[in-house]
Amino acid sequence: MPMMAARHACVSFLVLVAVIMAHQTTAKPSPSDYATEAQSIINSLLPGGSCADQAWHKLAALTDTVGNRVCGSPSLERASSYMLSVWQAEGFDNVHGENVTVPHWQRGDEECTMLSPRLGYRMQILGLGTSIGTPEGRPIEAHVLVVRNFDELAAFGKAGQVQGKIVLLNYACDWSSNPVGCYGACAKYRGEGASRAARWGAVAYLVRSLASASIGSPHTGMQRYASSKAEDQIPAAAVTVEDAEALARMQARGQDVVLRLSMGAQNLPARQARNVVAEWRGRELPDEVVLLSGHLDSWDVGVGAMDDGGGLVISWQALSTLRALHWRARRTIRVVGWVGEEFGGIGGRQYFDDHREEKVVLVIESDMGAFRPRGLSFSGGVDAASVMADVGSLLGGINATLVARDGKGYETDTQPWKAVGVPGASLISENERYFAYHHSHGDQMNVLQPGDMDLAAAVFAVTAFVVADLDEALPKGDERGEGEKGKMKEEKERQRMRKGNAGSGLAVS
Amino acid sequence: MPMMAARHACVSFLVLVAVIMAHQTTAKPSPSDYATEAQSIINSLLPGGSCADQAWHKLAALTDTVGNRVCGSPSLERASSYMLSVWQAEGFDNVHGENVTVPHWQRGDEECTMLSPRLGYRMQILGLGTSIGTPEGRPIEAHVLVVRNFDELAAFGKAGQVQGKIVLLNYACDWSSNPVGCYGACAKYRGEGASRAARWGAVAYLVRSLASASIGSPHTGMQRYASSKAEDQIPAAAVTVEDAEALARMQARGQDVVLRLSMGAQNLPARQARNVVAEWRGRELPDEVVLLSGHLDSWDVGVGAMDDGGGLVISWQALSTLRALHWRARRTIRVVGWVGEEFGGIGGRQYFDDHREEKVVLVIESDMGAFRPRGLSFSGGVDAASVMADVGSLLGGINATLVARDGKGYETDTQPWKAVGVPGASLISENERYFAYHHSHGDQMNVLQPGDMDLAAAVFAVTAFVVADLDEALPKGDERGEGEKGKMKEEKERQRMRKGNAGSGLAVS
Repeated sequence: MPMMAARHACVSFLVLVAVIMAHQTTAKPSPSDYATEAQSIINSLLPGGSCADQAWHKLAALTDTVGNRVCGSPSLERASSYMLSVWQAEGFDNVHGENVTVPHWQRGDEECTMLSPRLGYRMQILGLGTSIGTPEGRPIEAHVLVVRNFDELAAFGKAGQVQGKIVLLNYACDWSSNPVGCYGACAKYRGEGASRAARWGAVAYLVRSLASASIGSPHTGMQRYASSKAEDQIPAAAVTVEDAEALARMQARGQDVVLRLSMGAQNLPARQARNVVAEWRGRELPDEVVLLSGHLDSWDVGVGAMDDGGGLVISWQALSTLRALHWRARRTIRVVGWVGEEFGGIGGRQYFDDHREEKVVLVIESDMGAFRPRGLSFSGGVDAASVMADVGSLLGGINATLVARDGKGYETDTQPWKAVGVPGASLISENERYFAYHHSHGDQMNVLQPGDMDLAAAVFAVTAFVVADLDEALPKGDERGEGEKGKMKEEKERQRMRKGNAGSGLAVS
Repeated sequence: MPMMAARHACVSFLVLVAVIMAHQTTAKPSPSDYATEAQSIINSLLPGGSCADQAWHKLAALTDTVGNRVCGSPSLERASSYMLSVWQAEGFDNVHGENVTVPHWQRGDEECTMLSPRLGYRMQILGLGTSIGTPEGRPIEAHVLVVRNFDELAAFGKAGQVQGKIVLLNYACDWSSNPVGCYGACAKYRGEGASRAARWGAVAYLVRSLASASIGSPHTGMQRYASSKAEDQIPAAAVTVEDAEALARMQARGQDVVLRLSMGAQNLPARQARNVVAEWRGRELPDEVVLLSGHLDSWDVGVGAMDDGGGLVISWQALSTLRALHWRARRTIRVVGWVGEEFGGIGGRQYFDDHREEKVVLVIESDMGAFRPRGLSFSGGVDAASVMADVGSLLGGINATLVARDGKGYETDTQPWKAVGVPGASLISENERYFAYHHSHGDQMNVLQPGDMDLAAAVFAVTAFVVADLDEALPKGDERGEGEKGKMKEEKERQRMRKGNAGSGLAVS
């Protein structure tokens, strides 16, 4: 009986597919005409659906096997090869890698031990990306000066009290009420602090982790030296929230804090990495593209499941779902896994430079966690936004209808497109815990849930399919007289990228 | 004006004190007669009260200065000296230390690196207390076998599949619904697993951390070898929840997992440590004692703020509050900071053996976190429970009236007293997050809140004062025909202690 039932189901499925494919040969004028297709996509990703429960396991297979994927590492190369081979095997179109030159920073061994007042206390630290190490065999031993912000640092500097010290920046921010806002406001302390402290003669720089929660867990991330001269650069690392507060209390109490810091970090010659690309070719307008994406590179701690393996895999799962349904939209749907994001959106910028002549209709990225989706954050013109709102309405069954024009396109890699007026979207999800795990040992598979990832993939699949299939392409922002604004934005964006993106509150790297 | 106001307040306070001291010379028959005193204690600990905001800062000063306090370490000795000196300075009675012989286990350097499938992934681990190390210069490299429980371990063992392997025990438990229950049920995997795995030829033992939440954070704790023969012992460590699940997935997927484990752990000769004692002597019956306590020793990670600095400090703060109010109860109120708790309640047992002839009326401990209090868990006879419920009623103003006879006296150090019928109580607080931080790098000051600690101190102060001041001593359990049961319990308790307490679900070490 089960066998017969299965055969029966299979035949029904094929009939259904044939009906839908026939039905698809005509494009439709409005998103509301796609209610049936949207529901089929959603159904296939809901529990028990033919494509359910795949995304999380795809991500687990990637992260368990390859692990984290920091720029310049062999594991990032392994990850690119892995993605290309599974995409090839799955039968996508035009599967290929595109070279990107990325920095090669290596952490090495790290140790930070308190000598006073608590002799021998081993602090949990993580060096910051691009930080130099301490001289081999010569750890830095110095007194600590705790400051709360750059103004305080400058005041102590002018008073000659930074000279020879390890500076600890213990900013204050209310992470519980607005984690993204806190990150935006305080990322400069991670990004720029080392150079600012060095200017006043500090010998090393520590920063309170950019973290909304902590279980003794430091959070790394990129920093950027203002000067390329070796003598202007000092080692920089993140300490835990707990230790930052403890050291601040010690200083307030008049206790003398002395640390011994040893870091094996090295900036090695730049390396080749690969943005990875797969398509589900359009049936009528294959040169017009809806782009879905997440970044493949990660930091070198945890496994980069949340940041941003999940974003890439829900993009992939959207494509897999359309493939499984045998649906081709009029336009091409392309998935890109960016590299170099954590060092400032390098892969995204490279891709834009190489592909800017292409007709890209919509760029979508998820890089703020593939949690239970609420909808999309959209940037673009009024007409496009109206179409997108109609697309969002198709997601009522999974409570993900939100299309916010909040300007919160935090995703770095798609910024260059948005800056020239290409409509852009990013996933809005229940990511309140994002900064508890971000850039820490805790960025692992447990953070994400299979059912949530399926729903996020449904949001991407429905959006990409409908926009790719509509009669008319989504109107570009600059076609609505936003051209000048777009060009200005582009220039601003280029400047930001050139600066390495460190310290910007705009993009979450 | 402010000066005059302050002087005025001071005079009023002295008048109040004189009134209360006069008023106190007569003991009262019932807890309900102490409503005024209870309210005064509570008021002095509520925001703006004369004793408010002290407890948390006392704990911060201890933990910032001394840090964690593992048995046998110099920092535990420093902590005992620190406590005795601050208690002496505060003017308590009979401040002294009492020697206890404790184990001396040293962690040393630890490293666990994956060789396959993810070459070079550095796992976050913490060796378990009493574990041996790996041979110097010869890390253990072996294939991993993941099992879910002891039955599975035995089955694999019988099939010859444990021989030469590193065993990882990845138990399953729903921590979100019942964290204490999970800990009770799964502590055996930490406590007994190494010897069970060694029996089947395993070369090392890893256990999924006993943790209700994780940000890549391992949780240590005690284990116990079943045999004292060196050849029966293998190194044992806790891995993170994330890594345990990842390794289980790898095995399920057929991936070959190989680890290299290096641990510098050593069991050194036992050392002297000191239970620390301070009293606020009774005005009429100084030889009758109400005992308040927490344990001073901790694990060697984090700073042991929650486990159990907080328990000791709220006991201390209760005494400080009574001293500040210049109130002496009829009986003595004594604070004890135990040592050796983490290795099986050694200090508590020693103290019981040395003091069992004393008339101890009530033993109180907090060792499940000094969070916002709900009340007390009480063990004792029916009459005593009735008195305690009346005492609890005095705490209505701070919503801490609960006096639960739930038998959940998890606190280890006071068990010997309870086992012979002495009424016992422990703090019940909003400790749902306790096992997120327990025995990890995250057991730091941030876990506890000043206002919560003040309220917990109020519960202890009111309870201790009223019970110590009442006309009649709280009736002992064995006076109500519970003598035989008490003796049996005592014997059982002794056996448990002799076994080192490891793996017991009863006590949370």
